Amino acid sequence: MTITATHTFSFELLYSSKKSRARVGRIHTPHGTIDTPNFVGVGTNGTLKALDNATVEQIGLQLMFCNTYHLLIQPGTEVVRKAGGLHSFIQRNMPIITDSGGFQVFSLAYGSVADELKSRGTKKQDGNVLKITEEGVLFRSYRDGRKILLTPESSIAAQKDLGADIMISFDELPPYHIAQDTLKRSLERTHRWEKRSLDYHLQNPNEQALYAVIHGGIDLTLRRQSCEYLTSLPFDGFAVGGSLGKNREEMLEMLSFTMPHLPQDKPNHLLGIGDLSSIDQCIPLGIDTFDSSYPTRAARHGVLLTNQGDLKVAKACYQNAFSPIEEGCTCNTCQNFSLAYLHHLFKAKEAVCMTLATIHNLHFMVQRMQAYREKILQGLL
Amino acid sequence: MTITATHTFSFELLYSSKKSRARVGRIHTPHGTIDTPNFVGVGTNGTLKALDNATVEQIGLQLMFCNTYHLLIQPGTEVVRKAGGLHSFIQRNMPIITDSGGFQVFSLAYGSVADELKSRGTKKQDGNVLKITEEGVLFRSYRDGRKILLTPESSIAAQKDLGADIMISFDELPPYHIAQDTLKRSLERTHRWEKRSLDYHLQNPNEQALYAVIHGGIDLTLRRQSCEYLTSLPFDGFAVGGSLGKNREEMLEMLSFTMPHLPQDKPNHLLGIGDLSSIDQCIPLGIDTFDSSYPTRAARHGVLLTNQGDLKVAKACYQNAFSPIEEGCTCNTCQNFSLAYLHHLFKAKEAVCMTLATIHNLHFMVQRMQAYREKILQGLL
Repeated sequence: MTITATHTFSFELLYSSKKSRARVGRIHTPHGTIDTPNFVGVGTNGTLKALDNATVEQIGLQLMFCNTYHLLIQPGTEVVRKAGGLHSFIQRNMPIITDSGGFQVFSLAYGSVADELKSRGTKKQDGNVLKITEEGVLFRSYRDGRKILLTPESSIAAQKDLGADIMISFDELPPYHIAQDTLKRSLERTHRWEKRSLDYHLQNPNEQALYAVIHGGIDLTLRRQSCEYLTSLPFDGFAVGGSLGKNREEMLEMLSFTMPHLPQDKPNHLLGIGDLSSIDQCIPLGIDTFDSSYPTRAARHGVLLTNQGDLKVAKACYQNAFSPIEEGCTCNTCQNFSLAYLHHLFKAKEAVCMTLATIHNLHFMVQRMQAYREKILQGLL
Repeated sequence: MTITATHTFSFELLYSSKKSRARVGRIHTPHGTIDTPNFVGVGTNGTLKALDNATVEQIGLQLMFCNTYHLLIQPGTEVVRKAGGLHSFIQRNMPIITDSGGFQVFSLAYGSVADELKSRGTKKQDGNVLKITEEGVLFRSYRDGRKILLTPESSIAAQKDLGADIMISFDELPPYHIAQDTLKRSLERTHRWEKRSLDYHLQNPNEQALYAVIHGGIDLTLRRQSCEYLTSLPFDGFAVGGSLGKNREEMLEMLSFTMPHLPQDKPNHLLGIGDLSSIDQCIPLGIDTFDSSYPTRAARHGVLLTNQGDLKVAKACYQNAFSPIEEGCTCNTCQNFSLAYLHHLFKAKEAVCMTLATIHNLHFMVQRMQAYREKILQGLL
């Protein structure tokens, strides 16, 4: 395979497993390469929580996920555009992916998936959503009360202001508990919205890539239809979104069915899933990238990831643990500080504990994903 | 002046101003040198808030203040001793100063100076203090309810567990509003406690230095007596403590009187004062080191120190300020991030804003103190 130096987006498939659908590849972007499979850290407001972006780059996180919804509301995408785009504004020199904003707006409308599952679909949360039409969604900013109309075009325009290497089409996130015909109508509208997103993007590609979002909930027929329609359009990659099921089993069943309907020569992404067990089970299904706030959120709650499982830093048994979190770990936290000191900082409610724990967990994810790539290349997965 | 390489404590007076009592010196300790005048960052629990100690060293903060009271309660000084001392436990390779714990215990008993001044001495706060006797103070840990007896001997023993380069004698902190005879009796007891601290220390000096605390409130006669008595004992340096008056004027009047009663050949420290105006007015009175949590606390509240005065990062006018906090500033924050980004992080309530702001403010203090030293050496102060 010949690689030509390029500043535009491309996907290079390096190796496909003989044992499973697992694969190793490289996504090339204007801001560098993402080795796949890989973990995507979530930096909602233009920063991973408790870490500055220079540190995130040192750790080697190749792709960072920023949320258009949050950035639209604060500081506003126009400010970011004036700053020269998100890379310049937040001082990140490596690839960035942004979402459409739709997920958060519809979470406001329907409640989060977890809330909705807990209430078995009876809970209505209209939040600040004022109107959902064919045009798009009108909602009110929780920050200053101004009305914001999010449409396929305005979402892509916002993502162009942000200048992410990878953008995501505007879609509707329907709830898990939904009648079959409602889900079907939602899927059709999502397809129209995604097509409008693509058309708007192609007027000015600007070296950005655009991923479609495959929908259909846990209805396999709709998932297939979604793959067929969206892969017929010139998207640069495909994210799997919408309701992924009420538990991991449903998600794995859906993905096992869906993934073979996606093209081999384009990268894919699993939206919002990144716990260690899911990653372990989804890589053999062919997922390239995973985004999740789990490792960083866990860190802030004192949960440290290790190869021996989760470690709760607050436990009394670590009071005198004068060794690093994990022997042999090369992260800056383990290189400098003992578990006993982290335990102390956590008990003393010192914010720096969150920073040190996040450094470790993020480094752990980067290393873990590299190990998966090596395993696949060695024919072990 | 000849300097011999030594691992023990010494003070080297490099230059005394002809215009004022301002002076430039070097305090040598087993963990390195402190250039004076200097600012001492407060790392109560063994960390400056929102900064890890590797970063603090990079910024060049030469002396860090840790609080024995907090460390006694969490993680306990025995844990620190087992870790090989505070330097090892918190991974700081530069000098550390600890206090006696008395200040916090007596703040519990009498309320903070600010609270007490506001209530004009009518407010009684007994907190968790159970008994104050000639022996010492018995108080209850707010963390686990256990009773702790703090005496001159137990305070020094705790500070020996911590292994700070500079320790502070155990003293009583009387309130500002106090009858003359009560203040006099308090001073006499403080002198006995400090003598006991010194005696206990000298049984096992362990390459640590011990400062006395000059008391006497705003009573100049008592201040003079305190200087006379304490400087007659072999302390390594002198801190000015106790009530420093109800405003800066009272403090400056007291210091103008007191400082000439301290020996030229030993270092001194002003306890708990480190705002820019006070530093500016106290350096000409001969103060060598200042500790204060002001620059780090201000940072966490979005107040950035600059040579043009305080800058409030939340102000709307900084939304599009794509330049650093201060042009020419060499701190890591200014080298990497714009004021607009910091403004955004602050508005978005991202904790990393505290870290970036603290880096700037601490770097500012380090630079500011270096500028004072140069000014004195140039005969300008």
